[in-house]
Parts: sequence; C-alpha cells; structure tokens
Amino acid sequence: MEKQLKIIGMSGSLRKGSYNTGALRYVEQAMSKDVVYKTLDISDLPFYNQDFDTSGYPDVALAFKEELRDADAVLLATPEYNYSIPPVLKNALDWASRGDEKPLVGKLAALLSVTIGPLGGARVQYHLRQTLLALDMKVLNRPELFIADAAEKFDEDGNMQDEKTKKYTKRLIDALVEEIKKSK
Amino acid sequence: MEKQLKIIGMSGSLRKGSYNTGALRYVEQAMSKDVVYKTLDISDLPFYNQDFDTSGYPDVALAFKEELRDADAVLLATPEYNYSIPPVLKNALDWASRGDEKPLVGKLAALLSVTIGPLGGARVQYHLRQTLLALDMKVLNRPELFIADAAEKFDEDGNMQDEKTKKYTKRLIDALVEEIKKSK
Repeated sequence: MEKQLKIIGMSGSLRKGSYNTGALRYVEQAMSKDVVYKTLDISDLPFYNQDFDTSGYPDVALAFKEELRDADAVLLATPEYNYSIPPVLKNALDWASRGDEKPLVGKLAALLSVTIGPLGGARVQYHLRQTLLALDMKVLNRPELFIADAAEKFDEDGNMQDEKTKKYTKRLIDALVEEIKKSK
Repeated sequence: MEKQLKIIGMSGSLRKGSYNTGALRYVEQAMSKDVVYKTLDISDLPFYNQDFDTSGYPDVALAFKEELRDADAVLLATPEYNYSIPPVLKNALDWASRGDEKPLVGKLAALLSVTIGPLGGARVQYHLRQTLLALDMKVLNRPELFIADAAEKFDEDGNMQDEKTKKYTKRLIDALVEEIKKSK
C-alpha cells in the first residue's frame, strides 16, 4: 500500500481567536481524507541561538523536527507583523533549518495570509518566500492566497465563514496536494 | 543644562560569544562620553500576540518600552537567520510598535550586521528596513555597515579586534549622533 501523504500546517498567530489558525482549521476540514494533515503547535519553541548547536537541542525542538521528518509539505498561514514575519513562525522555520537533520530541505510549501486590513499580507509573504529559499523549500508559485478584510470573512472565534474564501483556500490545498503527487 | 542624548542598542543574537553583541560592546566603548548608551536585553520578551492588547502587557514588555521612552535613537546589530531577521530582534520591534504608547515612532535608527559568511548580512538589513518603515522610524541611509567574515575580525569571545572594522563602526556611531543633533 502506498504511504499516505502528510501535510503539516503552522500558524504565525498565537492569538486565541486567530483568523490564520482558523484558516488552518478549515484546511484540516477540507483536506481530502487520504491526506494526513496536522497543525503543529510552535508556541513553545524557545528563541533559537547557535549555542544550542553545541549544548544540544531542547526536547520541544527535537519533537518539532520529528513531526516534520515524514511530512511531504508544509502549509503556512500567517498574519503580517510590521510588514514582515511574526517571530513565532520565523523561529520555527529557523529551528527546522538547523542541526544535522534538515527535515524541510527540498520539500513543498504553500502560503496563505489573513489580515484584518485591505492588503491581506502582501508584504509578509515575500519575506517568507525569501526565508523559504534559504531553507531550500519548493514554494508553490500559484495560487497566491491573500485574505484581506478578515473580520468580514471569519466569525469572532476565527472560523472561516465566507464561501468564496473557502473556495480559494480549497484551491490552494488542491494545488499543493497535486504538486506533492507530481513530485513522487 | 541640555538633556543628554540617549541611544539604545539591541542585538539580534543571544549566543554567548555573539559577534553582534560584541560589536555593541565596542559601540558602548567608542561612544562619546556625553551620550548615554545602553544595550538592552531583549531575550525575555515573550512572543507578542494580540491577546496581550486586551489582557495587559507583561512587566518585561512594559519595562522594555519604558527604556525606549526617552531614547533618541536605536542601534541594531544583527546576524542573518535564513536570509531574514532573527525572531528575538523582530519580536522586540513588534512589542515596541504595539499599544497606545509607541516609543520609537519618528526616532532615528542605525543598522549594522555581522556574519561569519562573506555577505555580511546584506539580506537581513533590507528586511529590517522594511519593518522599521512600518514602525515609522528614520533609518540612516549611510553609512551601510556589513561586517563579513567575522571570525577574522573578532576574537572567540566576540570582541571586535580588527582596526578597520572599528573605524567603520565608529563612523556609523558618529553619523547617528550627528543626525540626532541635527534633529533636535
């Protein structure tokens, strides 16, 4: 039997009612059942610094890298903090890139961003793409998914409500799954 | 009597023998005595998220913003993590930008980056400039200071040894102090 595809989601927001984490809940729900999908909690990773390379990595970082090991792709959902990447997400990517085992190298990535403002994260995604280039990941060029004016498209708990937004999100998921299958 | 000028330094590296933190030690030493200079510890700030806006800010964040309140400028020294900003530094800037009091708006900033590789942080500085634009800071255009091949210019404890590098760093400090004076 063929191994099941596995996609890991990460959210750049720790806010309880986060729209981005909510978008990943929709991703989980809309993902085809033959794909294993899991949103990882990245909030407990300490700030990476190079001293860990000699002192050894904390358990939480080892567990994080272990989760990435057999993943085929990651799906990142992020707000924009000061025209760039939220530190919690950037830190997770930095951890994934360090040490002898680099579990994301050569793997696929897809991006979405949700903001309450009108730009939908147009700036953060290109900073993310530059960082993912450093990680040697293959980021989908299309579709680009910028979800603006989030308060109109999600409820107060961060659940995606807008049908058009769901459709675009489903398109992104489908494109990612298709690309994983092509790469096999 | 005129109020003393005050410059706050922040390092993007938490590594014990950090070259960037070492560069800030040289900054402290080379700063003219009529300027108050202090390197802030930003390692204890938790990851910012918007829930803090309603629950209230932790003491460490309030103390951090208090330190920035009467500063005239910041000097940022940073390594490059995956072609972008180390999360510990980005997180400090995010904290400075949130809440009713925004202690860095309109103030001056100067940048330097130190890397062991040959590019000297050419990528991280432009991501930083984009974020500092979001913070509405006035970043010095010149001099641009990229310190490459750090292992040849610093000792093992991260102390700046190279005379040329000291000269360039002094030039950056002088330009920043001059710009603060002009802005008064």
